[in-house]
Amino acid sequence: MDVFEIHKLNRGKLRIESTIEVNDREMLSQIYTPNVGKICMAIKDDPGLLSEYTIAGKTVAVISDGTAVLGFGDIGPKAALPVMEGKCVIFKEFAGINAYPICLDEKDPEKFINIVKSMALNFAAINLEDICAPKCFEIEKRLSEELPIPVIHDDQHGTAIVTLAALMGALRLTGRKNVKIVVAGAGAAGNAITKLLVNLEKEMHIAEIGVYDTKGLLATDRNDLDIYKHELALLTRQTKTNLFESGIRGADVFIGVSAANSLSKQMVKSMAKKPIVFALANPIPEIMPELALAAGAEIVATGRSDFDNQINNALAYPGVFKGLLASGVKKADIELKIAASKAIFEYNLPNLTKLNLLPSILDKKIPDIITKTIMEMSKS
Amino acid sequence: MDVFEIHKLNRGKLRIESTIEVNDREMLSQIYTPNVGKICMAIKDDPGLLSEYTIAGKTVAVISDGTAVLGFGDIGPKAALPVMEGKCVIFKEFAGINAYPICLDEKDPEKFINIVKSMALNFAAINLEDICAPKCFEIEKRLSEELPIPVIHDDQHGTAIVTLAALMGALRLTGRKNVKIVVAGAGAAGNAITKLLVNLEKEMHIAEIGVYDTKGLLATDRNDLDIYKHELALLTRQTKTNLFESGIRGADVFIGVSAANSLSKQMVKSMAKKPIVFALANPIPEIMPELALAAGAEIVATGRSDFDNQINNALAYPGVFKGLLASGVKKADIELKIAASKAIFEYNLPNLTKLNLLPSILDKKIPDIITKTIMEMSKS
Repeated sequence: MDVFEIHKLNRGKLRIESTIEVNDREMLSQIYTPNVGKICMAIKDDPGLLSEYTIAGKTVAVISDGTAVLGFGDIGPKAALPVMEGKCVIFKEFAGINAYPICLDEKDPEKFINIVKSMALNFAAINLEDICAPKCFEIEKRLSEELPIPVIHDDQHGTAIVTLAALMGALRLTGRKNVKIVVAGAGAAGNAITKLLVNLEKEMHIAEIGVYDTKGLLATDRNDLDIYKHELALLTRQTKTNLFESGIRGADVFIGVSAANSLSKQMVKSMAKKPIVFALANPIPEIMPELALAAGAEIVATGRSDFDNQINNALAYPGVFKGLLASGVKKADIELKIAASKAIFEYNLPNLTKLNLLPSILDKKIPDIITKTIMEMSKS
Repeated sequence: MDVFEIHKLNRGKLRIESTIEVNDREMLSQIYTPNVGKICMAIKDDPGLLSEYTIAGKTVAVISDGTAVLGFGDIGPKAALPVMEGKCVIFKEFAGINAYPICLDEKDPEKFINIVKSMALNFAAINLEDICAPKCFEIEKRLSEELPIPVIHDDQHGTAIVTLAALMGALRLTGRKNVKIVVAGAGAAGNAITKLLVNLEKEMHIAEIGVYDTKGLLATDRNDLDIYKHELALLTRQTKTNLFESGIRGADVFIGVSAANSLSKQMVKSMAKKPIVFALANPIPEIMPELALAAGAEIVATGRSDFDNQINNALAYPGVFKGLLASGVKKADIELKIAASKAIFEYNLPNLTKLNLLPSILDKKIPDIITKTIMEMSKS
């Protein structure tokens, strides 16, 4: 069916249902006045009961301001709503999670934070989505600190978890050591991917990580970096900037997460022999797979569903949220994210090939695999 | 089933479902990246399409700050959520409307207004609920003026529509003329009921309306009235205040909508012969029906489901919102509310008795009766 027809058929992709049939006065008085008053007063006396007696205990909010939607950028909160609704469909279809989309017409980070805080009581967790960098970092940090529920900006962490799982597979298949990684893009995804990688330098035999924005390598000798980019320069111990064209030379792994960069055949040829190329820009990858392969790449992944090795955060976020809700863990810290990556990687090991770095995005067992991992972590 | 069990069974009374099954990559790419991007860009180019392609076109938000919940008063937004969720269940069960509850942790009216405005794009209409007077008036007025969708504070208008329908029935049965009405309570419901009544003075043979707060009759010689109470004094042409005890003498109709007032047997005896008594305070009526009847009342109604003649706004709001959504009418003005009252009254005419002023709250035909009325009004 045509994409417009699909969206028009039921006015969007979600519906809200009652879990209770109301066919007599008895039930009406239980779910509404007067007897619902007993539930109200129980919650007033013990606010912790809110999560037991209302949807606030089971529902994830998918919240965006529409400033960084897909590859389109700032298209506004109205145009962003179909994406948020789609994420909620995936939550339900893949992990059985109730999720509700809310796009906010508010671009000021401080006001945005206050609005989300004022409505957070209605939800068990918050999935921030498609909010532009750098404000996405501040918004996530503040909400995560100031709210008693998990708050995750999925463009950072969902993408990072899946990218890392794919990279684990690629390094296992190729057996590379002394790995030099170039991350092209220092926004939401580039930031989160880099932070996972620096925590795995030993384990993954990573010798060097260089993160590039449009001006060049993030290094401490640059004076145009915001605090988030400066932090990446410090974490990757880069002290002297250079241009992407020179940085890519000899690199073993390219991870592209910005529509601004493109990777030429020539650049792939300048990389180490048989390099790994993750061209994740959407919808147009930094280099098309056939070109990268022709230039000598051994393994290629993109964000697209029409090529092999699709790296898509939908493989991670339903399970991550399911695991957090089931375990009561509040914060998705670095250890949890790495554990989620490993869970995906290990689940796929029996089927791991250069054209199959990840399990299928349609494999509805993945959320439970991740949930199990998080549950076990929370007990230890 | 016990009310606590009912609420605990599924964590609340609502669930969110996908309208689309996602079993292959094809469908995944339609509801999510990359093809959902076509819907995003269509909405960016024509924001009016938002209501065609997303749940924003069909979903009512039930929004409260928890400052005037049932008879409990200001119990806060968490304790209010079970009521809002119950309203959403009634929306779905009785009118097939998707409705979502949001309680906001924000008591400042200006900030509350701004928060609701920032999230209004996600909804087709807003049902404000359980917000205390007088700020409920300002909040409803401002949101109604500043948003392009219907905004209705149901504690005012839902209650008023059903009360008026019941009064039409009572006056038809008793054939009273020169009717003197006392409204006890000048909050949300009292205000809205009075405004409907003054518009029907001729048609309903109303000779006098007096509205009382805890200090006495709202009249223009009082200097302690806020602008909303002063407006009621003007509308009812009351120039000299008096106490409730003297105002109730000789009255034909008592309409109680405030937990603060109570009506003694003696007071009922002081009313005109065979008076009409609507004791709508919840959960404890201003006078119990058997006492009012023993004191000579001819017709008695309450807000409770365990007595005859239950006056409950659930009889009105599912139909009012269904009618507004179906017709595209933006504002529920006085004419529309009166028409809704008449539609309920007329539908019940064949069954009208002193013990049956209104149709059953469980009669799922009512929303369509009201919808039909609103559709016809919108065409004329």
